[in-house]
Amino acid sequence: MKLSLEDLEDLARGAAFLGTGGGGDPYVGRLMVRQALEAGGAVEIIQLEDVPDDALIIPTAMMGAPTVLVEKIPRGDEAVKSLRALEQHLSKKAYATMPIECGGINSTMPLVVGARLGLPVVDADGMGRAFPELQMETFHVYGVSGTPMAITNEYGDTALIVSHDNRMMEWLARGVTIRMGGAAYIAEYSMDGRTAKRVSVPRTLSLGLQIGRGIRHAREQHKDPFAELIALLRATPYQYGTLIFEGKLVDVWRETTQGFARGRAIIAGTGTNADKLEIVFQNENLVARANGQLKAIVPDLICVLDSETAEPITTEALRYGQRVKAMAVSVPPIMRTPAALAVFGPHAFGLEESFHPIESLSASMAR
Amino acid sequence: MKLSLEDLEDLARGAAFLGTGGGGDPYVGRLMVRQALEAGGAVEIIQLEDVPDDALIIPTAMMGAPTVLVEKIPRGDEAVKSLRALEQHLSKKAYATMPIECGGINSTMPLVVGARLGLPVVDADGMGRAFPELQMETFHVYGVSGTPMAITNEYGDTALIVSHDNRMMEWLARGVTIRMGGAAYIAEYSMDGRTAKRVSVPRTLSLGLQIGRGIRHAREQHKDPFAELIALLRATPYQYGTLIFEGKLVDVWRETTQGFARGRAIIAGTGTNADKLEIVFQNENLVARANGQLKAIVPDLICVLDSETAEPITTEALRYGQRVKAMAVSVPPIMRTPAALAVFGPHAFGLEESFHPIESLSASMAR
Repeated sequence: MKLSLEDLEDLARGAAFLGTGGGGDPYVGRLMVRQALEAGGAVEIIQLEDVPDDALIIPTAMMGAPTVLVEKIPRGDEAVKSLRALEQHLSKKAYATMPIECGGINSTMPLVVGARLGLPVVDADGMGRAFPELQMETFHVYGVSGTPMAITNEYGDTALIVSHDNRMMEWLARGVTIRMGGAAYIAEYSMDGRTAKRVSVPRTLSLGLQIGRGIRHAREQHKDPFAELIALLRATPYQYGTLIFEGKLVDVWRETTQGFARGRAIIAGTGTNADKLEIVFQNENLVARANGQLKAIVPDLICVLDSETAEPITTEALRYGQRVKAMAVSVPPIMRTPAALAVFGPHAFGLEESFHPIESLSASMAR
Repeated sequence: MKLSLEDLEDLARGAAFLGTGGGGDPYVGRLMVRQALEAGGAVEIIQLEDVPDDALIIPTAMMGAPTVLVEKIPRGDEAVKSLRALEQHLSKKAYATMPIECGGINSTMPLVVGARLGLPVVDADGMGRAFPELQMETFHVYGVSGTPMAITNEYGDTALIVSHDNRMMEWLARGVTIRMGGAAYIAEYSMDGRTAKRVSVPRTLSLGLQIGRGIRHAREQHKDPFAELIALLRATPYQYGTLIFEGKLVDVWRETTQGFARGRAIIAGTGTNADKLEIVFQNENLVARANGQLKAIVPDLICVLDSETAEPITTEALRYGQRVKAMAVSVPPIMRTPAALAVFGPHAFGLEESFHPIESLSASMAR
């Protein structure tokens, strides 16, 4: 499938949704793909089953704090250089690139690489959403080595990291990213097609497109975009979507520290709802609580959306006074196994609560 | 020339002298070479003129805060892995290794690599002493690229950095070193023999040996080791050595921060001398002042020595109550050019004073 400019708008919106507050500003990513397309490039999206078992896939992405990206706009060829550095190190050419996460700028970053190099982009990823750290990937959960990995900045400086331990990779790469100014561009978790079929969350670029398109259609047809979203998710592996809160943003506390955007947002309920919803984030929204009661928790999606248009609002765009709805969405089974929860469940973020699927939380609240 | 175990003792002492307080504890380096020698290795020291013009030299070293090294003892094969990683990246085998600095542990680190791999070690270096940062090298001053460089820790994790800018190399490598626990092992400034002959400070391993041997001989023959030292330096490119202060260490302030050991030491004068000498250091001793008057300044050597035995005392070994003499030594002309002073003169360390050669400072004091 070739990606059109209209698809691109939809995909960026859907990616912002799946970014659950993080993943980087998809607007920047959209501009980068548009530029590559207008320069004559094309983006060919392929399915996992189209990749030969022995073909090399090199996923590409942005790494760093989304808050930094707003000010430090990439040149556009950073991730390309990382992919090339990895090819050189492996002495093998990539057959395709792929997202490592399907939220925010990292849905579009591999499209930039694909358009610039004429490489197809695999419709799958390693997070099924956005997460803040490099070991928080189904690739890692199911046994793929993240390294050798390459990191490049806007000056073309590159670091190539080799480690036996994906957490050490994250630790070292984060250190390099911080010294590169808080945002850098990576190629990592290179693997063959056979492995990718086993360890990826499939069809998540399509999912982003579908979500973005659904919101746009609802607006064009003057329908309720939230009801449309919940209906369309039902037919995907992200089956269960539900609105958990509606209100006005009354407080945001945010700091960019140790390479992450960390903080929390408070939404005061409107109408009959006098509660306050607190959302805690590390790049992405991690947990939502109202009056000490758990409303939704990672890895399920917690998305803050404009209460009229359902436009997703990323962490760094949260502002006092915004009228928003918070939606929670269930993630596919591959992301809820004990092995997966050990890597990107609540405890991995230092949260005290255990994982509770949004289906059960929402059922108990309805009782 | 083959290095003997007795040579090794002398070299370690001389290297501690040339380390001017920094460069890492030479005791650790000496143990590492001894281990490699006892395991059947040999260290062959060669001269720059013995290296073919087109042969590849890969210098090796420890990077980090000397204060950390005391607690985080290396495995011994870290620098070997860095050299191998660089060989692989360059697709070329090293003909020899070489020190990047001739002070402290980094005089001995390439000997460990040489003994383990059966590679000769070139009798030259890129600092002519010890300095805290990777761009502070005659290699850099005279136009060699520090990268590609490799950094390895005790777990075998490796980062390979490629940059157009040696200061950026230092910045990124320092970040990686900090995340590796504050001490790591590097291979950098790879160059051919022709280049090495142009940009190195020659015969500095020999110089270290000579200094260490001179101090030992003076002790064995019950002579004044300081007078012996000053006499032997006169016949080297480090011609002018002079005692600038004698006293008791009364205060040391030291912190390990941003990957460096920074601080200052105060020596109270003894006998007729009622002054106090303040020495400021960043890994190495940078400037010595008495009552606001400049006594010696980087890149000239400022060495704190035990007042009886002339044993060099490194920054991390400074203790209240030690009786010490401070000696300053002139460095060779290649290290005092405007280009060199721009890279490792006083302003490069944020000091306000300009460079004043110890010869002129000491003459003006005698007046």
